[in-house]
Amino acid sequence: MNSFGLKFRVTTFGESHGKALGCVIDGVPAGLKIDEAFIQDRLDKRKPGKSKLETSRKEDDKVEILSGVFEGVSTGTPIAMVIFNTNQKSKDYENVKDIFRPSHGDFTYFHKYGVRDYRGGGRSSARETATRVASGAVAQLLLKELGVKIVSGVSAIGTIEAKTHDFDYASSSPFYALDKSVAHLQESAIMEAKNTHDSIGGVVITKAIGVPIGLGQPMYYKLDAILADAFMGINAVKAVEIGDGMQSAKVKGSINNDQINKNGFLSNHAGGILAGISNGDTITVTTHFKPTPSIFQAQKTTNTQNEEVLCELKGRHDPCVAIRGNIVCEAMMALVLADMALLNMGSKMEHLINIYKK
Amino acid sequence: MNSFGLKFRVTTFGESHGKALGCVIDGVPAGLKIDEAFIQDRLDKRKPGKSKLETSRKEDDKVEILSGVFEGVSTGTPIAMVIFNTNQKSKDYENVKDIFRPSHGDFTYFHKYGVRDYRGGGRSSARETATRVASGAVAQLLLKELGVKIVSGVSAIGTIEAKTHDFDYASSSPFYALDKSVAHLQESAIMEAKNTHDSIGGVVITKAIGVPIGLGQPMYYKLDAILADAFMGINAVKAVEIGDGMQSAKVKGSINNDQINKNGFLSNHAGGILAGISNGDTITVTTHFKPTPSIFQAQKTTNTQNEEVLCELKGRHDPCVAIRGNIVCEAMMALVLADMALLNMGSKMEHLINIYKK
Amino acid sequence: MNSFGLKFRVTTFGESHGKALGCVIDGVPAGLKIDEAFIQDRLDKRKPGKSKLETSRKEDDKVEILSGVFEGVSTGTPIAMVIFNTNQKSKDYENVKDIFRPSHGDFTYFHKYGVRDYRGGGRSSARETATRVASGAVAQLLLKELGVKIVSGVSAIGTIEAKTHDFDYASSSPFYALDKSVAHLQESAIMEAKNTHDSIGGVVITKAIGVPIGLGQPMYYKLDAILADAFMGINAVKAVEIGDGMQSAKVKGSINNDQINKNGFLSNHAGGILAGISNGDTITVTTHFKPTPSIFQAQKTTNTQNEEVLCELKGRHDPCVAIRGNIVCEAMMALVLADMALLNMGSKMEHLINIYKK
Amino acid sequence: MNSFGLKFRVTTFGESHGKALGCVIDGVPAGLKIDEAFIQDRLDKRKPGKSKLETSRKEDDKVEILSGVFEGVSTGTPIAMVIFNTNQKSKDYENVKDIFRPSHGDFTYFHKYGVRDYRGGGRSSARETATRVASGAVAQLLLKELGVKIVSGVSAIGTIEAKTHDFDYASSSPFYALDKSVAHLQESAIMEAKNTHDSIGGVVITKAIGVPIGLGQPMYYKLDAILADAFMGINAVKAVEIGDGMQSAKVKGSINNDQINKNGFLSNHAGGILAGISNGDTITVTTHFKPTPSIFQAQKTTNTQNEEVLCELKGRHDPCVAIRGNIVCEAMMALVLADMALLNMGSKMEHLINIYKK
Repeated sequence: MNSFGLKFRVTTFGESHGKALGCVIDGVPAGLKIDEAFIQDRLDKRKPGKSKLETSRKEDDKVEILSGVFEGVSTGTPIAMVIFNTNQKSKDYENVKDIFRPSHGDFTYFHKYGVRDYRGGGRSSARETATRVASGAVAQLLLKELGVKIVSGVSAIGTIEAKTHDFDYASSSPFYALDKSVAHLQESAIMEAKNTHDSIGGVVITKAIGVPIGLGQPMYYKLDAILADAFMGINAVKAVEIGDGMQSAKVKGSINNDQINKNGFLSNHAGGILAGISNGDTITVTTHFKPTPSIFQAQKTTNTQNEEVLCELKGRHDPCVAIRGNIVCEAMMALVLADMALLNMGSKMEHLINIYKK
Repeated sequence: MNSFGLKFRVTTFGESHGKALGCVIDGVPAGLKIDEAFIQDRLDKRKPGKSKLETSRKEDDKVEILSGVFEGVSTGTPIAMVIFNTNQKSKDYENVKDIFRPSHGDFTYFHKYGVRDYRGGGRSSARETATRVASGAVAQLLLKELGVKIVSGVSAIGTIEAKTHDFDYASSSPFYALDKSVAHLQESAIMEAKNTHDSIGGVVITKAIGVPIGLGQPMYYKLDAILADAFMGINAVKAVEIGDGMQSAKVKGSINNDQINKNGFLSNHAGGILAGISNGDTITVTTHFKPTPSIFQAQKTTNTQNEEVLCELKGRHDPCVAIRGNIVCEAMMALVLADMALLNMGSKMEHLINIYKK
Repeated sequence: MNSFGLKFRVTTFGESHGKALGCVIDGVPAGLKIDEAFIQDRLDKRKPGKSKLETSRKEDDKVEILSGVFEGVSTGTPIAMVIFNTNQKSKDYENVKDIFRPSHGDFTYFHKYGVRDYRGGGRSSARETATRVASGAVAQLLLKELGVKIVSGVSAIGTIEAKTHDFDYASSSPFYALDKSVAHLQESAIMEAKNTHDSIGGVVITKAIGVPIGLGQPMYYKLDAILADAFMGINAVKAVEIGDGMQSAKVKGSINNDQINKNGFLSNHAGGILAGISNGDTITVTTHFKPTPSIFQAQKTTNTQNEEVLCELKGRHDPCVAIRGNIVCEAMMALVLADMALLNMGSKMEHLINIYKK
Repeated sequence: MNSFGLKFRVTTFGESHGKALGCVIDGVPAGLKIDEAFIQDRLDKRKPGKSKLETSRKEDDKVEILSGVFEGVSTGTPIAMVIFNTNQKSKDYENVKDIFRPSHGDFTYFHKYGVRDYRGGGRSSARETATRVASGAVAQLLLKELGVKIVSGVSAIGTIEAKTHDFDYASSSPFYALDKSVAHLQESAIMEAKNTHDSIGGVVITKAIGVPIGLGQPMYYKLDAILADAFMGINAVKAVEIGDGMQSAKVKGSINNDQINKNGFLSNHAGGILAGISNGDTITVTTHFKPTPSIFQAQKTTNTQNEEVLCELKGRHDPCVAIRGNIVCEAMMALVLADMALLNMGSKMEHLINIYKK
């Protein structure tokens, strides 16, 4: 249950304020060059405290590889990576030890397990996404060898939406904004939320370019379904769209269908997926993040004795989780595609003949 | 890959124009009364040809139980069910045998597998959802014993949206409309699409009431993530929302958070799920269906030799797949919840002590 | 839990005296020629009532393919097969309805599930192995394309052991005996057991020749471990050996090690597997079957009210389950190897480059 | 593939001469007291270098828990444990860097993956079993709460077999010998093998007492089949028996059947398992270990260029792997039973009603 993927399979562990977080990646083909600097770079992009738009918790998020790599190359055995926690302030959480922060996992974890590690949300903290990013980076290394490129960016902050999607711009923006022309408005909206001890929602668009035709395993491991699983599972995500998504439900078939000529599809309303299988066109996923539930306004809640109390948070929180979530989206896209690339092997007898008879 | 669920696990098989479709349900606890009439009733609600709003293909969709039930009660062994196809007209598909229908699985199935059963879409046909409904009905029987109730309805057809959500009305509406006041407009939109040889999208809302607190397995089998998987995997679905979904991304935390008093949550923006675990409140999923890709207008496409040709469909197709999709949504909700109820057993030592030491 | 294999995945269903047994095979690569006559032939070799050495229950065991095959070729979608029961005599079991037959699953099924289908052992009957044989036959068709050949035979009946292993002879022997010189003694032992209303144990040897190097997934899906799982899971099996098996534990390393020269291994004590991975040499599994527990002598037992009663069986039973078990062994070998051949794809980056970049 | 178990699921990583070994245990119910001293004690019993009968490699095998435990109690989140390697001598392996040690995984790892970590066998080293023992210790803590006790001992060294099985004696014997009367002969056999630069095989018996009736999931996750998988997967194991095992195949049903009276079974030839499900009696598994393949005599082999060379090993190796394997057997028994105890929950509707409706 703490594993993701079937053949490129990641198992993660660790709590926000425990000793360490980590992951074990099983199924990495042998012979992949493991570029540690790239993995660290992905973590650096996700790590907190890079700007005033993010939580002030500072973590180095220095990754250490414990196994599965020999002389810089994957050996086919599990790749374990750990990130030690260095900047926990557990005492920030003393006052919420017995109370349920509204819209957090506190309530559900407590009822499901009967006990909980209250420090910083424990396992339910978005800090866990560091391990998604580390393992996603390995998936990206694999996908690069196959010619797949993943990009992403923030399209909306609250109600302020991008009009254009410039992924180059996003990669240089401090909050991965897709549209320079509205970025300052979006930044103001974030700061306004922060300054009023509030938080704000946002939307991320993730694309994968150069994906081979044929990825996705019908009937119950379809590419779109597993992408939905992967993205909805990111902390704070409440909606996922593939291609035109919601817009598709509003139009007629004659508008929504992607006609074809010998050079390929004439449009890409489908977002690169038909019947759960990649069609060779760019894959597009839109992910909607709710505002960070941790806000610094007093809120009504109860405690573990079901007494009514006020929740008054301390601690350090992102005013908008979509920002760092953007990097996690790229990781999840990579994890899904690497897994699907491996799973698709053997869909035809030809694949087996290629490998075993030649 | 043709299985869904981990402990309440359904494996389905069958093609649109093959001999039969069917499913095997593994993990049904022994001692559940299997009400065959209820299962058949669910299939009858999904089956085609009930009204002019649906495809004119008429299938009895008569279900037959082959195993796993003895004297009306589940025995703990796999329950296999089959539905024989009786009204296939394979010759309707002779003329599309070598061409790719725009926005269908034809193109991707052909490239993934190298061969395809072109008759009626083969395995990629929405006819497969009959087996989801049959197995979902068994899940519903199990959930009823736990006090869980599932309802659903169609909230939008194209751009015409329900203003109120009346699930009682939906259950008596020929197209499961949620709002009587706009139902006639929605019906007109469907008929207009049909009469112009086109199709139209729609939106379904599905709710589960009375779900116990604690269902959902973090970190990678979260309740919301698996619901997203389940619903996105239904044919023609392009977006899935949990609770307020997209709306949550537009607002601030102070608006979106669900505060708590000793009687429970003061609002339900979360749609009954926090940190991937049910919180006891009503679970809400909104599902967006694209318009049926099979339309009767000429469309540009290619064939298996990559020659450009016109696609001119015959056959019988739903003008709006959201309608019958509505019943499939209930089935998927039930399958996910039954699985999660079983998986949650053992989350605490107390559960084991209860079962093994008392 | 009623599924076997990860990528070549078989799900079986059905009870001894229910309507039908069947299986769904998921993961068969598209483009495999499905030779139905071969599948039926395997079932015919396993089916009961072929000689006086077997139970007199006569079943046609006629297999019907419901899906996944189009124009004689696999399409990549699940292949479902059913075998309808035709010669059940449920009333044979009326008198054991409430009692536990010694060394049967009656006792454990009743306690685990609280209910049981007592007719002919229900799901615990060896009749279930028909579906293993049907799906194993499809695995054999796949393996033939890769140059793998599977043979087997009965090496011992009770204490009478074969001195030579002649797999050609076995294939023509009515009870798959490996050594013509002791076959008549073994046959007498079976008949003697039968005539005294008793039963007798036996041993089967199964070999796979031409298996590619590299099959088997360490650390917890090793080839030898999964073969042990597969063979121990066959009804009545109580011990499994790989290669020299038990003998290896009695000797020194200098005797047991297989030295190597440039043409390959100088001996095969290992049975073709090193560190859980095939080494290219012949794979050998030895399987020990206990005597059929259903004997026609009075035995002490209890009933569902825990009262002491005598068990006096009617019905029709094999005097030696190892005989028909021999065919099941071949099926399990094939299922494991087909699965492993698929799973191994992607062990090296080279495999991915082959398939996606060429 | 580096995970074991379905609900109590262990994922392990690490190489013999890498930075660290470790495991992640997913599915430990919340509220289990985690006794670290017990875990360390199990590791101490397995660790090398305790006597002259074992390899002289000395490892502290000090375990560190990184997650999943809060204030001494499991929280329901993954428990990660690491053991850092401290006493590697990689240069011992320089001379076998390119050659295949006879009967090792060198040959198969190289061919499967194209690369290998040659230092100490890399991942294929029995050093990996430290992580089995660490996770097995957590399983044992869980099973203790359910009243299950696991014992084991060495019954044979080479051809010298125990006549009695005294598990108390075994726990105090330096090589876990079951029979004091032959222990000195067995010890001499080990020393003789060691002194002649050879190695020797051995046999281990493992028992589980007090196992609840009903554990084991037919049809393809039977208790006996998964025990066979678990034990055969231990390094150097070549045969596994349940209950009377091989002996059962030599006798008649009237001898082998376990008759029943109201106090239970009158014998236990079955080894506590019927039809793949525990029957409440003691579970018995017999495991046959081949002699350590690493011997210090010159052996014929080839190198990665398929040139014939002599293998002349340095390094430090156990003369008899069965000894330390004994502790691993207990761990595997515990892992299987803990998993089965969790999986069995939900076999009856009664279990669900107990947990969700009371």
